[in-house]
Amino acid sequence: MKIIVVGATGTIGKFVVSALQDQHEVIAVGNRGGKFQVDITDSQSIRALFDKTGRFDALIATVGKVHFGDFAKLTEKEVEIGIRSKLMGQVNLVLIGRDHMNDGGSFTLTTGVLAQDPIRSGACASLANGALESFAIAAAIELPRGLRINVVSPGLLDESLASYGPFFPGHETVPGKRVAKAYVKSALGHQTGQIYRVL
Amino acid sequence: MKIIVVGATGTIGKFVVSALQDQHEVIAVGNRGGKFQVDITDSQSIRALFDKTGRFDALIATVGKVHFGDFAKLTEKEVEIGIRSKLMGQVNLVLIGRDHMNDGGSFTLTTGVLAQDPIRSGACASLANGALESFAIAAAIELPRGLRINVVSPGLLDESLASYGPFFPGHETVPGKRVAKAYVKSALGHQTGQIYRVL
Repeated sequence: MKIIVVGATGTIGKFVVSALQDQHEVIAVGNRGGKFQVDITDSQSIRALFDKTGRFDALIATVGKVHFGDFAKLTEKEVEIGIRSKLMGQVNLVLIGRDHMNDGGSFTLTTGVLAQDPIRSGACASLANGALESFAIAAAIELPRGLRINVVSPGLLDESLASYGPFFPGHETVPGKRVAKAYVKSALGHQTGQIYRVL
Repeated sequence: MKIIVVGATGTIGKFVVSALQDQHEVIAVGNRGGKFQVDITDSQSIRALFDKTGRFDALIATVGKVHFGDFAKLTEKEVEIGIRSKLMGQVNLVLIGRDHMNDGGSFTLTTGVLAQDPIRSGACASLANGALESFAIAAAIELPRGLRINVVSPGLLDESLASYGPFFPGHETVPGKRVAKAYVKSALGHQTGQIYRVL
């Protein structure tokens, strides 16, 4: 199976690539690293990416920025960062990528625990995550040619604890290796419209 | 209590105004109708609105457009309609309105059943609804001065059945009068971070 991983050089992406690369043709895509580069906030850049990759069987997106900061000072511009990157970046990977995907292929998007379990400073992440989850379950009932779409919503990773732990008081963490299994299930399983919460 | 209803002239807004106007000072705001007008896609227009209304105790938003149409043909531009209107319109009512709200005041936003129960052609509505629900539960834990925020997520209204019924096969409908009660509960009750699903 030819599987594109957008965000392959990130914390989650690396685990996903490891879990898949022995048995599949994995195309690693990064912002600066990877075999190909893409700026997911720019739909022209996404179009150019698929021209380079050619047709594929699965696309996994482990990518997207959001602003973290006090809600008291939150501005429209800061909300827009996550809307342009994590939200519309992943939506556009679907809207543009579907025409390059082989019959029966699958999209797997990434959200996170903040969709239902908010933390301080995390409203923009919650917003993007909630949007993507509802988008995916809706897209799933309309995608043609047996195309599928699922979401993986991980909790805070063990491997992110040092950097982000202070923002997630009391949150249990999950090993990246366990999170990667949900992406494998989404890409190789036959389910669609699922939100795999790895908590 | 001084309550601003943005979307007061719409199907839901009319029921909300009816439920509140006998016992409260209701400021009806519409796109073209109402006492004051606002274009929620324009943050300058939202700022101008609050300069006219003065300080208030509750803001209820029953407003926002989204594109409905086949997912197979859905474009980035069509997704943006709902992001600019239903999603960021309501988010900006909160981000801008909070500084004009009296201590202990409340925001009530509107989503809808499509956040969890999608229909064909409804992916943009699902996206906006899911985003607003996760945004609200996150905002609730950070709002200062006892400010509160809740969401009302109605099913298809009895009163909308003639116009939208064909898009919602098998959906049970709810009377507008019942939906209005959830807005009253949000504005006059003391809960925050709640999603009131009226199905």
